[in-house]
Amino acid sequence: MTLSSQQKKEIAEQQAQKNTTKRVTAPELEKILYEVLPVLDHGFVRVVDYMGDDSSVVQAARVSYGKGTKKVSTDSGLIKYLMRHRHSTPFEMCEIKYHVKLPIFVARQWIRHRTANVNEYSARYSILDKEFYLPSKGNLASQSSNNRQGRGELINGKQADNILNILKKDAEQTYSNYELLLNERYDGSTINESSKGLARELARMNLTLNTYTQWYWKTDLLNLLNFLSLRADSHAQYEIRAYADVMINSLKKWVPITFDAFMDYRVGSMELSAKGKIVIQKMLKGEKCDQEDSNLSIREWNELMNSLGFKEKIL
Amino acid sequence: MTLSSQQKKEIAEQQAQKNTTKRVTAPELEKILYEVLPVLDHGFVRVVDYMGDDSSVVQAARVSYGKGTKKVSTDSGLIKYLMRHRHSTPFEMCEIKYHVKLPIFVARQWIRHRTANVNEYSARYSILDKEFYLPSKGNLASQSSNNRQGRGELINGKQADNILNILKKDAEQTYSNYELLLNERYDGSTINESSKGLARELARMNLTLNTYTQWYWKTDLLNLLNFLSLRADSHAQYEIRAYADVMINSLKKWVPITFDAFMDYRVGSMELSAKGKIVIQKMLKGEKCDQEDSNLSIREWNELMNSLGFKEKIL
Amino acid sequence: MTLSSQQKKEIAEQQAQKNTTKRVTAPELEKILYEVLPVLDHGFVRVVDYMGDDSSVVQAARVSYGKGTKKVSTDSGLIKYLMRHRHSTPFEMCEIKYHVKLPIFVARQWIRHRTANVNEYSARYSILDKEFYLPSKGNLASQSSNNRQGRGELINGKQADNILNILKKDAEQTYSNYELLLNERYDGSTINESSKGLARELARMNLTLNTYTQWYWKTDLLNLLNFLSLRADSHAQYEIRAYADVMINSLKKWVPITFDAFMDYRVGSMELSAKGKIVIQKMLKGEKCDQEDSNLSIREWNELMNSLGFKEKIL
Amino acid sequence: MTLSSQQKKEIAEQQAQKNTTKRVTAPELEKILYEVLPVLDHGFVRVVDYMGDDSSVVQAARVSYGKGTKKVSTDSGLIKYLMRHRHSTPFEMCEIKYHVKLPIFVARQWIRHRTANVNEYSARYSILDKEFYLPSKGNLASQSSNNRQGRGELINGKQADNILNILKKDAEQTYSNYELLLNERYDGSTINESSKGLARELARMNLTLNTYTQWYWKTDLLNLLNFLSLRADSHAQYEIRAYADVMINSLKKWVPITFDAFMDYRVGSMELSAKGKIVIQKMLKGEKCDQEDSNLSIREWNELMNSLGFKEKIL
Repeated sequence: MTLSSQQKKEIAEQQAQKNTTKRVTAPELEKILYEVLPVLDHGFVRVVDYMGDDSSVVQAARVSYGKGTKKVSTDSGLIKYLMRHRHSTPFEMCEIKYHVKLPIFVARQWIRHRTANVNEYSARYSILDKEFYLPSKGNLASQSSNNRQGRGELINGKQADNILNILKKDAEQTYSNYELLLNERYDGSTINESSKGLARELARMNLTLNTYTQWYWKTDLLNLLNFLSLRADSHAQYEIRAYADVMINSLKKWVPITFDAFMDYRVGSMELSAKGKIVIQKMLKGEKCDQEDSNLSIREWNELMNSLGFKEKIL
Repeated sequence: MTLSSQQKKEIAEQQAQKNTTKRVTAPELEKILYEVLPVLDHGFVRVVDYMGDDSSVVQAARVSYGKGTKKVSTDSGLIKYLMRHRHSTPFEMCEIKYHVKLPIFVARQWIRHRTANVNEYSARYSILDKEFYLPSKGNLASQSSNNRQGRGELINGKQADNILNILKKDAEQTYSNYELLLNERYDGSTINESSKGLARELARMNLTLNTYTQWYWKTDLLNLLNFLSLRADSHAQYEIRAYADVMINSLKKWVPITFDAFMDYRVGSMELSAKGKIVIQKMLKGEKCDQEDSNLSIREWNELMNSLGFKEKIL
Repeated sequence: MTLSSQQKKEIAEQQAQKNTTKRVTAPELEKILYEVLPVLDHGFVRVVDYMGDDSSVVQAARVSYGKGTKKVSTDSGLIKYLMRHRHSTPFEMCEIKYHVKLPIFVARQWIRHRTANVNEYSARYSILDKEFYLPSKGNLASQSSNNRQGRGELINGKQADNILNILKKDAEQTYSNYELLLNERYDGSTINESSKGLARELARMNLTLNTYTQWYWKTDLLNLLNFLSLRADSHAQYEIRAYADVMINSLKKWVPITFDAFMDYRVGSMELSAKGKIVIQKMLKGEKCDQEDSNLSIREWNELMNSLGFKEKIL
Repeated sequence: MTLSSQQKKEIAEQQAQKNTTKRVTAPELEKILYEVLPVLDHGFVRVVDYMGDDSSVVQAARVSYGKGTKKVSTDSGLIKYLMRHRHSTPFEMCEIKYHVKLPIFVARQWIRHRTANVNEYSARYSILDKEFYLPSKGNLASQSSNNRQGRGELINGKQADNILNILKKDAEQTYSNYELLLNERYDGSTINESSKGLARELARMNLTLNTYTQWYWKTDLLNLLNFLSLRADSHAQYEIRAYADVMINSLKKWVPITFDAFMDYRVGSMELSAKGKIVIQKMLKGEKCDQEDSNLSIREWNELMNSLGFKEKIL
């Protein structure tokens, strides 16, 4: 991620703002407001605006006239209760807005979260930056052999070099041809004064999916939690998880009580099916219970034993 | 609307807040933040939080690193352009939250706007206030004779007195029976120490639809505009329009440039159908054009002539 | 619920339809299509249209060219997998539409599910039916003493009679005054030929919240499951649960495989928090684990022991 | 678009279905159900399911017990009225589902319509087809000189050949390297038995944005109209308009009355701003009205004159 001096200046101006407001503020979040938080090789996340804090959740749950806060301990108890029982609407009363720079293939996963507001940089209108994502060697995984949607062992040595080489070369070449098609370089200079460029909306099709794009993305706290619980999860693709991890950190600074409840009841939690519950109940009573008499498939049995840390029972 | 001294105190505490923030602020809106803006006989609207201002619309449209503002005139031109061409997503980048007290039958219309966040006072959990809406005499309209969904002439004299009398008596009686069912008065005192009250979630069914409820309601600027263009319209029921009118005033204080564009391109605008456009084109060329050769139904013809102020052409 | 002979005729005509289609059909659901399924004293649910079946979920998950079905056992495995891992989007590919008659206070809870399409009978435009909900004696519960949002013991004897009497009398009186205000009876006859009626949009405010309304309500399978898991739950108010129970039955006829997965992974399931998981792991290993050293509050501890059927451990 | 014989067989099986249903059917749409309707060079649209027809709109608007239809002329009048006055909810009562094959850069525009259900072919899980979009020579436009978001004149001759050559070569090369990265060819054969392939979720980043993807896309009639009015518009990029045009044809077969109303009140319509309305009123009265005394900017003036066909007044 390379910021121009103009961009740096604009960000610094935002950070220098010192406005007075009657609204509630989140002091820890204010500290990192507008800051460029790096993700992957050229990406970033910036928190650019927010509304409300933990007390806003409490206020809405109580439909109170005032701030909604009584004592921290009371508020915390209420927020935990709301999270535990999935009383979700009070969490919609806070809002946050991010400016994100991300590879297009990550943007395509991200956009599937529909309850959010988005303005993306338009490649119909402007030229995309000359930046594309290349995995670090530590993330160059082979296809998983038992999970069609996952990663297996790392690839290393010469094969790794070859792979990175291909990715780099193809991205550079297609970008360079993108400029040729546009008859314009990424810095705005014209290539051939005597000829026309292809329409931007067409030329962009020559770019590869690791090209970086950027957008403003705004959502409410509930939908942020939904996003994070799916995208910070170990089943999520590493590249989007990298963004989710940085955003979880901003969540903690913004709404620390909600963050704690989220970690306990959502991130670290597990769900027991009706059949799984019976297995656990039998086991707790000391009754014998094997996969065969559990009504669970082998796959389900293993998932359950794995979640509970019963490695020796995995078949 | 009668506020308890506790409620007044809580509101005053909110208004006394003086926090520092790096976020953009809307100074005119700050002035009325948390203020109780009366609507109808016991209702109110309070702006309790907001995020962003006109510059946030511009910032998102440009996906810019900084504030998005260049010059007021440039911003204004861009916002007008976005409004005119229904490029709507940048208007989703601002958010506002209201605390509203309103009759249940108004709440039932309002809730049809789905793209909003709501927490309503729960009559399963608490006792509703002893307040119900009674129209003023100036709003006691008869059923329209030509619009099944509208109001006709005012009702006055003895019939008006009778109507108000019925509404008042029935509301008071059902509320008083609500207390009896609950075995608890609105101030929390028990009626009969030796008996149990009916569950709140059941007792509430005895209340009439003009009973006041309250909620926190949060939405983005685009959906607020959609709400206002429908509910501040002359076809909306007077009672919800009264709320929309107060909210339009808060819109003006919050995002004055967007407000102007909204008044020009949405509130005061009209739509010409394909067939209507041909009529206007003929008329502008000085060609003869009557309803018969217009391909418009009489109803459509009249709507068009009325919108254009051609009263003499209405059939 | 009293249907007019005209209404009965219209329903019979719908049921007599025998159209040919290339779309998939759900034969069991077809059998009850359009049928009036009674709920509460005057309410009903009617399935009036649907799109897709279990194979549509499979088809979308596979983005396949054909029906998506391989073998029932394979499909069933896939649907269970999707449900277990909350891969929710394929369940959005089926759609169902209900015609529902329900008390207004139930409609107010129901409408909070925003991801649905609704057309409600308009009391601005028409006169509401003379029907209101009166609980049966078996549902006349007192306010719970330990759950502010719940019901306690049944009320019976003379107090029950009094309660029902109040509810009935107030509903009848306010309805009768509604007719007076309208100057029109529910059957359309005018009361006083020489005077005008109050506008319908105003007169309706005199009705009580147990008055029946009706609507068309359409949603996708995923959002139907969300609705049912909240509203068929024991924490839901009995009156809305009565609707959910009837709808669960239609779910079973429509998508039997999805229904099974839903009952196992959603309805009968429980969630273990991160802390709760540690408690279970300790117990399974035979380690001592009391509430004090569990990091759970007493309330959480009791909820956990209750869910697992450990009644003797409840504090 | 090349269909495998297996795909052709599956489609033929779907088309051979002859099920009996009590639901309403749309006979004209049934005729093309499942059919592959070609778009661009390798894309297609297939209508794969639907629910409701014009009578469903009427039925919901009336909240009727029966089919909602009285006479075609009455229904048509009601549907026109609903469209004209933007009473939009009854149009949500019909649903349609498409199977679409489309270039990724088109998919990225399309997905911005959030009120829809989508299941996309997963390149984390499977290998994408070896197909990419190349514009025909008739669509090879240069960048517009006066509209930063539009197309100008056609590019032709040798430059056109060069452009197509670049697009083709880069797509072929990046796809061929995609196979190399995967260590697997598009037909499933392994390239090098002794080495592992890169994880699919990573390898896909090497593909260009004109690569074809496919999805199931389902939406209600109202949101389909919104999609079509934006995407079949002359301001939309040609490549997405090509899809919208084919879908408009399916709209006509599905709901012919709604289609007519849509063409008249939405597609062919124009909006007059408050200021624009005054201009027209003056002109109709024969008063002099120039841009200077119109309160319109030159740009707005020109847009207005252009919409009304007053070419000679454009400045």
